[in-house]
Amino acid sequence: MATFVSVRGPRASGRTERRHAVRCLCIPRAPDFVPPSSHWLSLPDRGVTAPLGFLASGAAAGLRSSSDRPDLALVFCPDGAVAAAGVFTQNLVCAAPVTYSKEVLGKPGNTVSAVLINAGQANAATGSLGWQDAIDSAAELSKCLGIPADEALLQSTGVIGQRIKVEDMFGAIPKVVEDLSDTDAAAKDCATAITTTDLVYKSTAIQVEIDGRVVTLGGMCKGSGMIHPNMATMLGVVTCDVDIDNKLWQNMLKEATDESFNQISVDGDTSTNDTVVALASGKAGNSKIADETSSEAKLLQRALTALCQGLCKMIAWDGEGANVLMEVIVEGADSREDARKIARSISSSSLAKSAIFGQDPNWGRIACAAGYAGPKFDVNSLDIALGETKLMEKGQPLPFDAEAASAYLKAQIDVRGVVQIHVKVGEGHGAGVAWGCDLSYDYVKINAEYTT
Amino acid sequence: MATFVSVRGPRASGRTERRHAVRCLCIPRAPDFVPPSSHWLSLPDRGVTAPLGFLASGAAAGLRSSSDRPDLALVFCPDGAVAAAGVFTQNLVCAAPVTYSKEVLGKPGNTVSAVLINAGQANAATGSLGWQDAIDSAAELSKCLGIPADEALLQSTGVIGQRIKVEDMFGAIPKVVEDLSDTDAAAKDCATAITTTDLVYKSTAIQVEIDGRVVTLGGMCKGSGMIHPNMATMLGVVTCDVDIDNKLWQNMLKEATDESFNQISVDGDTSTNDTVVALASGKAGNSKIADETSSEAKLLQRALTALCQGLCKMIAWDGEGANVLMEVIVEGADSREDARKIARSISSSSLAKSAIFGQDPNWGRIACAAGYAGPKFDVNSLDIALGETKLMEKGQPLPFDAEAASAYLKAQIDVRGVVQIHVKVGEGHGAGVAWGCDLSYDYVKINAEYTT
Repeated sequence: MATFVSVRGPRASGRTERRHAVRCLCIPRAPDFVPPSSHWLSLPDRGVTAPLGFLASGAAAGLRSSSDRPDLALVFCPDGAVAAAGVFTQNLVCAAPVTYSKEVLGKPGNTVSAVLINAGQANAATGSLGWQDAIDSAAELSKCLGIPADEALLQSTGVIGQRIKVEDMFGAIPKVVEDLSDTDAAAKDCATAITTTDLVYKSTAIQVEIDGRVVTLGGMCKGSGMIHPNMATMLGVVTCDVDIDNKLWQNMLKEATDESFNQISVDGDTSTNDTVVALASGKAGNSKIADETSSEAKLLQRALTALCQGLCKMIAWDGEGANVLMEVIVEGADSREDARKIARSISSSSLAKSAIFGQDPNWGRIACAAGYAGPKFDVNSLDIALGETKLMEKGQPLPFDAEAASAYLKAQIDVRGVVQIHVKVGEGHGAGVAWGCDLSYDYVKINAEYTT
Repeated sequence: MATFVSVRGPRASGRTERRHAVRCLCIPRAPDFVPPSSHWLSLPDRGVTAPLGFLASGAAAGLRSSSDRPDLALVFCPDGAVAAAGVFTQNLVCAAPVTYSKEVLGKPGNTVSAVLINAGQANAATGSLGWQDAIDSAAELSKCLGIPADEALLQSTGVIGQRIKVEDMFGAIPKVVEDLSDTDAAAKDCATAITTTDLVYKSTAIQVEIDGRVVTLGGMCKGSGMIHPNMATMLGVVTCDVDIDNKLWQNMLKEATDESFNQISVDGDTSTNDTVVALASGKAGNSKIADETSSEAKLLQRALTALCQGLCKMIAWDGEGANVLMEVIVEGADSREDARKIARSISSSSLAKSAIFGQDPNWGRIACAAGYAGPKFDVNSLDIALGETKLMEKGQPLPFDAEAASAYLKAQIDVRGVVQIHVKVGEGHGAGVAWGCDLSYDYVKINAEYTT
């Protein structure tokens, strides 16, 4: 099980706050990941500019209808990335920037050096005109940066069906190019510019020693809906200064995403714009990692997964209307994928989420969500615990102190903490974790009032 | 597309009401179902006692913790059913009464003559003790009715993980047996006794002329959660006086359920107790129907499907916190199952449901939910309309009057009407309909406060 290192919670600036409590964002610290010559570094105020070889910026382009906070973000790797990877929504109705970025990454031997991200409009379900907007955006950026157009990746977030305000965007592209910097402030501006209903910007970085060199990974993401990714979008950008083979980097991002971002959304409920991209600058000075079975590759994988888990937990914590993080740990399944599925099913159950909001230890809803998750298991092997309180063992309900269990939920909600649900479904080796949040009145309020 | 016949909405008696507006429940009237020598009869005040050969009752056994309204229901076919069928939850964590009823129906040549239903406790996730409670309940009923124990089906609804209060139930079984009657009042008592957070009892009946005889179908159901079936349970009981082959009757119930009850729940999100059973008394005097390709079988199938659709729409209309019925009609898919899946995906999208509650014609969320439904389609063939307003055509968003579209939503909400969403995904022959409701603050309130 993960332990946590408390980290100061950054706040998105210049925006209307939905609530006032200061929240604590955490970076997970995997206890089994303490390699002899290395250790975790928590760099809470840093982000995509932490690794060597990256610049970032964020500026207000006037794309948001209701706020003047930054809404255009740029991440730049001036010397070009040695490896670039991306994972994208499986939704058939995918946004123009998704299709565009897939094409850029799909070109054999192509170098990637920039990621341009806008908030305000999702540029999804915008037909052929939206597609042209994506092409024009990349062309405009390439002109200002002095790079080929096919070196830029695109991400958009906002209202589905709305085209980007391209004139406003084009007017601001010179500004984000001019503001590019490797400072922490630039990383913060960049992470702030991609937020939508997020209460906090989400940015972090970690370091790991590989091959005698310090390798740094930075990341930012946005998203604050939990039943479905918010506003049609979960976006993430990971930067790293490692030198690595391009194909291996893609596989690593896929693995890290499966263990993190894919465990905070309902299975199949990927939205039109969901995207995580990862660029490696190769500036750390390590020998290029090309063998996936090497200890260096395994170490990097753990660091990348941990970074992504830290980011994805920030999203769950910042779920629309959320008061508490739900962490569902499933063990004893036949396979890792089975465990992940069961964990996702529980963490996305509206009934279970509502019960947590109501401080109601209604564990039957947890058993129910495990039962319809899909994977087969023996119900006579089912154990369920809420925090430290065992509620079911070997399929038999246990007598428990309902007041104490309710008090546990209340205590975690009061500190915006973590509600842990442990589920064991058998004696198999499959284990998985998923994250969610409670379902509150505010979720409905936020989503009922979004476009109008 | 279905047209509607307005029917007076019955109300569950003796309970705290969640809201005050009188609602209109409707029975669908399929325009293509007007056989030459027959017609639909709407019998809004009738239910499971409408067909010949059935008695029913409902009584207060003290099983509910917070109310003294009826909570124990009995349906009885004194001469034994000529055909008995059931469809059950796919949830691994299924309730003891589900397992018990499956066993009863699975015995070759076994006659079924009774259905005993309790509200208050779901008897799910109750381990071996809960299983024994189910066996004891059937034994107690058989003693009072003077029938073999394996002639009774069981259904339970209420809190998962709680055992039935068997002493209270056994005390009330003589009463429900004594009260058995073929009156409309008895059908109403019976339908009321199975409700939980339902605002209205759900009961209806229709007639169709088959083989020169009037065949009557009656039904009742309960359930009022829409994201997941409420309180772990959607229950339904169908009675009919037709004479029919047992296996054919089972197939017909499966088909009717696929077109109705299975279209109001999220795919795979079946709860621990979901059950629909159907008994046929054979008293109508028709020649036994045994050929599924006969016109009689087809006529009966249509009537049975329509009855189940009428009942399932009552559930959607009465969704927890619901203000309006969502009807999602999907056409042009490659298959009927594809169309159903896409319709279900849209009708169960929390974002789309929240938008309707907010009177927000945010059609991008409809496109998004279609895109992640699973079935493949060409996004350049996607048409979307909200009521009479076209929003997207051939994958291109159309300019539309947002105020008028919002006014349509408001108007339907004001009269507790129907919000219709039409989606066309291509030129295929697959069509399907799904029903849902808006997602309001009250949904969260109801589910956050349920057990405590």
